[in-house]
Amino acid sequence: MKYARFRDPAGAVRRGEYENGAVHFGTESYDLESDEIDVLPPTEPSKIVCIGRNYADHAAELDSEVPDRPLLFLKPPNALAAHGDTVTLPAGKERIDHEAELGVVIGEQCRHVAEADAMDVVEGFTCVNDLSNRDDQRQEQNWVRGKAFDGAAPIGPVLATPDEVPADASVQTRVNGELKQDGSREQLIFPIPELIAEITTYLTLEPGDVIATGTPEGVGPLSDGDTVEIEVEGVGTLEHSVRIP
Amino acid sequence: MKYARFRDPAGAVRRGEYENGAVHFGTESYDLESDEIDVLPPTEPSKIVCIGRNYADHAAELDSEVPDRPLLFLKPPNALAAHGDTVTLPAGKERIDHEAELGVVIGEQCRHVAEADAMDVVEGFTCVNDLSNRDDQRQEQNWVRGKAFDGAAPIGPVLATPDEVPADASVQTRVNGELKQDGSREQLIFPIPELIAEITTYLTLEPGDVIATGTPEGVGPLSDGDTVEIEVEGVGTLEHSVRIP
Repeated sequence: MKYARFRDPAGAVRRGEYENGAVHFGTESYDLESDEIDVLPPTEPSKIVCIGRNYADHAAELDSEVPDRPLLFLKPPNALAAHGDTVTLPAGKERIDHEAELGVVIGEQCRHVAEADAMDVVEGFTCVNDLSNRDDQRQEQNWVRGKAFDGAAPIGPVLATPDEVPADASVQTRVNGELKQDGSREQLIFPIPELIAEITTYLTLEPGDVIATGTPEGVGPLSDGDTVEIEVEGVGTLEHSVRIP
Repeated sequence: MKYARFRDPAGAVRRGEYENGAVHFGTESYDLESDEIDVLPPTEPSKIVCIGRNYADHAAELDSEVPDRPLLFLKPPNALAAHGDTVTLPAGKERIDHEAELGVVIGEQCRHVAEADAMDVVEGFTCVNDLSNRDDQRQEQNWVRGKAFDGAAPIGPVLATPDEVPADASVQTRVNGELKQDGSREQLIFPIPELIAEITTYLTLEPGDVIATGTPEGVGPLSDGDTVEIEVEGVGTLEHSVRIP
């Protein structure tokens, strides 16, 4: 099953079932790409917990070491953006990159979750673009200007239940139609149950919270007007454009 | 004016005016310290934006340099705790410290706020204890295990409007009654308008969001059963205890 959140023509916020390009709520159906509705992020996280350097080939391209435990950082709700949005990036920066990621959506409030039980707290998966302002990220102890700016976390277009997403699901970025990143869920250094166990040793996860599981190699800079597609196999394709003021 | 949020004896969440030890809502009044009510954090932030090394004497005691722009980090909503709570700290750590801070509560949604206009978006002030798990903070790129664990941000007991808090308000910690930190709002390296301007260059602040403005010298470790008081002149005293499992 797949679910999309959207604002309907009357302005009401709905979560409907998504199938074959259309989202259904009650007796109504809408084409997800139509101008009749506004697609919203498929979940309303209180926080996005992100994982850095969770693919060995991406750590190598950044000249970074693979960490011995998950590298965690945070994106607050102001970072959210949705399928179809134009994200206005911070002005005056030399390099702001796309980072395609598999997003894990949490289904229940949880703390101290054992690895063996971790998939029980997962409601489903979505696509995340972990937009990264490298100018500031390189200079900061904590990546706030670098990773938590408004719109730094486009997510969507839908939430797909776990059965929809294969264990070796591909995770891809296309920029203006050109393939830039092409990884697989299988390549995660710290797999999802380990991430959930580690995070919940310290933090309570709430229903709707998202874990962005890290990005494969091939990150690269975005230019004003670019269209970005983040595709996770079994979820679908999140598309947004960027504006650089 | 001062305001407290609380759960009343019927279970309803209220925000009432606080005066002389009592909070008033409608025709009811309650002693803030009575068992009849549960004191809640005085605001419901979508994020707490914290400032590191914003007092020169504290940077020196950590053997850290004073940054050339504000050092930002984040605490998500799971970090909140309230006046009167017992905060359970992460287990098995050598050192978890108190850090007394002046908290700024934002009153309206804002972005790109000029320094000259910054105090217009401030609803008031509160006390924050920026609890810090040094074991993990020292090892992390981003201070998530170190600073964002459950209960890492006790705030309260009240929100005081700006006129209540002098420009040289003292910021103090007492542990089990003994004075440990004693700084002043005047000592902030980056004053509040500069912090608001810098943060809102990148992030939208929402009503209820909190900026924790940094801590003066005198931070130190907490032990199981300690009672901590954070006092900001003009706000009052936030009191909580800690449990180390």
